[in-house]
Amino acid sequence: MKRVYNFSAGPATLPEKVLEVAANEMLNYENSGMSVMEMSHRSKVYQQIIDDAEKDLRTLLNIPDNYKVLFLQGGATTQFSMVPMNLLKNGVADYLITGSWAKKAYEEGLKYGRMNAVTSSADKTFSYIPDLTNLTFSPDADYVHICDNNTIYGTVYHELPDTKGIPLVSDMSSSILSKPIDITQYGLIYAGAQKNIGPAGTTIVIVREDLIREDLRPDTPIMLRYDIHAKNGSMYNTPPTYGIYMCGLVFKHLLELGGLEKVYEHNLKKANILYDYLDQSQLFYGTVNKNDRSIMNVCFKSDSDELNDLFIKEAAALGMVNLKGHRSVGGMRASIYNAMPIEGVQALVDFMRAFEEKHGK
Amino acid sequence: MKRVYNFSAGPATLPEKVLEVAANEMLNYENSGMSVMEMSHRSKVYQQIIDDAEKDLRTLLNIPDNYKVLFLQGGATTQFSMVPMNLLKNGVADYLITGSWAKKAYEEGLKYGRMNAVTSSADKTFSYIPDLTNLTFSPDADYVHICDNNTIYGTVYHELPDTKGIPLVSDMSSSILSKPIDITQYGLIYAGAQKNIGPAGTTIVIVREDLIREDLRPDTPIMLRYDIHAKNGSMYNTPPTYGIYMCGLVFKHLLELGGLEKVYEHNLKKANILYDYLDQSQLFYGTVNKNDRSIMNVCFKSDSDELNDLFIKEAAALGMVNLKGHRSVGGMRASIYNAMPIEGVQALVDFMRAFEEKHGK
Repeated sequence: MKRVYNFSAGPATLPEKVLEVAANEMLNYENSGMSVMEMSHRSKVYQQIIDDAEKDLRTLLNIPDNYKVLFLQGGATTQFSMVPMNLLKNGVADYLITGSWAKKAYEEGLKYGRMNAVTSSADKTFSYIPDLTNLTFSPDADYVHICDNNTIYGTVYHELPDTKGIPLVSDMSSSILSKPIDITQYGLIYAGAQKNIGPAGTTIVIVREDLIREDLRPDTPIMLRYDIHAKNGSMYNTPPTYGIYMCGLVFKHLLELGGLEKVYEHNLKKANILYDYLDQSQLFYGTVNKNDRSIMNVCFKSDSDELNDLFIKEAAALGMVNLKGHRSVGGMRASIYNAMPIEGVQALVDFMRAFEEKHGK
Repeated sequence: MKRVYNFSAGPATLPEKVLEVAANEMLNYENSGMSVMEMSHRSKVYQQIIDDAEKDLRTLLNIPDNYKVLFLQGGATTQFSMVPMNLLKNGVADYLITGSWAKKAYEEGLKYGRMNAVTSSADKTFSYIPDLTNLTFSPDADYVHICDNNTIYGTVYHELPDTKGIPLVSDMSSSILSKPIDITQYGLIYAGAQKNIGPAGTTIVIVREDLIREDLRPDTPIMLRYDIHAKNGSMYNTPPTYGIYMCGLVFKHLLELGGLEKVYEHNLKKANILYDYLDQSQLFYGTVNKNDRSIMNVCFKSDSDELNDLFIKEAAALGMVNLKGHRSVGGMRASIYNAMPIEGVQALVDFMRAFEEKHGK
């Protein structure tokens, strides 16, 4: 089988060009005589790799100097703990519950302070982003937490809540690098790499320097302290060196494509191909509120579980794989991250059309 | 430059054959149409990869059924916290301080209970393993912690302390898989992958099931709970999928070599080539107590800092790199993990001999 169109929600498809570079450099990186995997993280050649990765990420996202970029481990789930352990001063934070990951972050936070679920869209299986205009935040909240793009449900915040100066913390695991953002609107952003950045096992944290504290509870595990990682340039201990290298290759690739303006344009085009088809289809329909649609995860279904299953099976046979929706939503989910080529989306819609002609009424 | 002999202490050299497989499979793993990096960790094909990795590790180390194997993140440093957070019941543990990593583990433990430094070799720059025959352990200790192989100094435990039934916890980051061991002598073993196993970013924990507890302090971060990882087959969240795949390739490779008996034989041969030369050299000498010599990290020096520097520089020019010793010891360190070929050690000794002929008295 040649390479498939992989609609997996994560770990997800990576740019083929990046994989080719990685394959070519596997035994001997730039004449160093060794694989990046074999390099001491304290070597000059590796320092250059991590420095370049950080520099390119800063360029892509236009990250101001008063924000630190950290390359960590443990995924977003580790951040569910690190955020409250590092950011709570008053012991209070507000969470917007727009999906099961947002809920898990909230539940983990409850271990460390008084967490308020200020709004939730659980009533309709998280198929929408709640109205943000009349939210009331706790006056003493140390931060407000959102999950920007809800991978399982296919919703995204098209606007941010006005937190009136309370630092906004955003889990951007499935939306980071999908479009330009204004970093200054955030206190802290975190993202597991495995959707839009690189391989699983690297987590990126972008945090405003004044939020990094040293006066934490003395029993805070050393690896869960932002201050330790910030002071040591993400090298307090051995970082996930190869993962960071792969992230760096992706960053370079995105810069070569023209940066995030171009990437966003491309992503919009891909999402529109799918949503435009869904909006006129008599068989398939999108599962979320139109105004809150994600351009990364497109959830849709037909009313027949049998047809949904058949669609997923036949698509896979045609080389379009991992289209099964999450069990809590059912139907289909096409994750169309940065690295999904427009040809993949076009092939999917072509097949949807053929499938509808055959099985629709 | 062709591939070098890389004597790095970690991340360290990997088997060339394994890197070749990884390069060949980078764009399309076994006809799946995708890279292992792009696979959903919930997919059948990935489940097979992690299952095979665990099975092969169990075979290599002859791990009994009442021990869990966990693939985690965060390196040994994260284990410095997880061990006390998960294993303390009485709040007491004993640590043997045989190097700066053992000391860091002890210091991290102090956050969580009464840790006793029952012995230390700090008086002589950790150049020996203390006498184990007359150690007194705390009667209520929840565990005894050792660092098996002291990477920086080049010492190893050739025997284990008799803990009289107290679970022994061993940081085997730089010695795991170097020789057969009797797992039943340990309560818990942990190891960062980046020396003898695979790329940095994966941590392996082997833990006796009865030591995995659920009644932990309620504010224990979810990712730092062994019970959560054990119950979820190391997939509570997205694991470092590619790192685990690489570890699996290394395990298969070691099995193909004939298992750990053969690997140990090979390692002994390599270490003896170096130590035999050192023991008759008039210029170079080993820096540690002969009885406690590591077969993984061989530390040596001459009495001249100038000659040491020259040696490191000239060796590098000949393709033998990363021979500089840790700053706390000085001189040279040759890390000769499993993947260092005997030709690399022979080349090093040949150069030492030539260097001595030129610069010795």
